[in-house]
Parts: sequence; C-alpha cells; structure tokens
Amino acid sequence: MTDTDPKTACVHAYIAAFEAQDAAAAAALFADDATVEDPFGSEAVCGRDAIHAFYARAMQSGARLALSGPVRLAGDAAAFPFTATVAAAPGGMILDIIDVFRFGADGKIVAMQAFWGPGNVRTG
Amino acid sequence: MTDTDPKTACVHAYIAAFEAQDAAAAAALFADDATVEDPFGSEAVCGRDAIHAFYARAMQSGARLALSGPVRLAGDAAAFPFTATVAAAPGGMILDIIDVFRFGADGKIVAMQAFWGPGNVRTG
Repeated sequence: MTDTDPKTACVHAYIAAFEAQDAAAAAALFADDATVEDPFGSEAVCGRDAIHAFYARAMQSGARLALSGPVRLAGDAAAFPFTATVAAAPGGMILDIIDVFRFGADGKIVAMQAFWGPGNVRTG
Repeated sequence: MTDTDPKTACVHAYIAAFEAQDAAAAAALFADDATVEDPFGSEAVCGRDAIHAFYARAMQSGARLALSGPVRLAGDAAAFPFTATVAAAPGGMILDIIDVFRFGADGKIVAMQAFWGPGNVRTG
C-alpha cells in the first residue's frame, strides 16, 4: 500500500469527510448510481442523492472514524478495518467495522459494503 | 460478537486449520460448490476438491494466521482482519489480509474473498 494509490487516497478522504462532518464531501466520492449496504445484508441505499442523505444522517451522531489496520487493495476493491467512535453516546460507543469499497474506472466508489453487527458495538 | 456464534467459530476453526497445517480441515468448512477468490479479483477456485488443493499448496509455505482485530458479523457474512506470517521466507514475511466469508444456511462457507495486494506484504 502507498498513500498515493488513488483507492487508498479515497479511503483517507472518506475518513476526513467524517472528521469535517461534510456529507457532501463523502457523497462526492461515489458514482451517480452507487450503492451503499451499511450494514451488509440490509437494504441498499442507491444513488448519490440518497447516499448524501444517508451520510448526513450518519454524521448527526458526531461519529469519528479511525483506521485500525492498513488498507488492503485487491482487484477493483479496497478493504479496511476501522473504528467509529460516537463520543456523544452514553458512556461513549465504539463500533468495529470493516468496509469494502469497489471502484469504477473513473475512481469513484460504485459499491460500498460495511460489515458490522450488534456484537461489534462496545463502550470505550 | 461472541465466540459461540457459529460464523465466528468457523473463522477460528479456519485459523486453527492453518496452525495444524490441515488442508482437509480447512476445506471441510466450505460447501461443495463454494468459491475462493484469493486475492479478490483473481480467478476463483471453484468446488471443495479444488479448494482442498488450494489450501494444501497455501499451507506448504508454513503460513500462520492471527486475527488483528475482531470478527465482524453482518447478514450472511463474517469479515475479519488478520496477518499471515511466513517465517520461512527470507527475513520473515507478514501479509495483512481481510477475508470475507459468506455462509449458506447449513453454516458452510459458500464464498470466500481475500483482500490483499503487493502493498500489504512486509517483512517482520
């Protein structure tokens, strides 16, 4: 992995968008017809406008993201482990998540899947 | 996550199969018509016999696996970050990998995708 790889740069931009609470910046990383499954197995959010709304809601919690290991690059995908910390939750809440982004030829995310469940939520 | 969840137990059994250098034990975790994409984006290995042969080859390196974060459970899937350490390689070699297992109703793995690339290989 190098940070100059565009897929890795996209992951860092995604984390920075949360840090800045900038849902538009997050949505801009996605293709027009992208899909978001968060968590994986739930109904997909389809299209950039819906994705923008999804991130606007998600960011209302004040969640901050931090990588908990290196970004893995394979084929058209990036996969990365991270924590989402919600300081505003009672006692503080930390979620352990793995995201998989798949990219189109133009470098936009075409599909995002977030792997986490109730057992991945802890206080901290 | 609890270790009694059958998907999480399967992940631990997979790691234990590598520890025991037991390709048959690894293959037994998969459905008859399962697919393995390792790394993601490469041609899939299809069917349990081919998967058995794939793990027999993979284990010839003496690789040992260790979780580097919690198993994430979502929908029919488990995703987990781990290291594969190949002590026999010159200088030692460590790969940072994320695997995604998808499970059938009988608890067998029906699809495995391993996310790692050249940038995820380091000495250690």
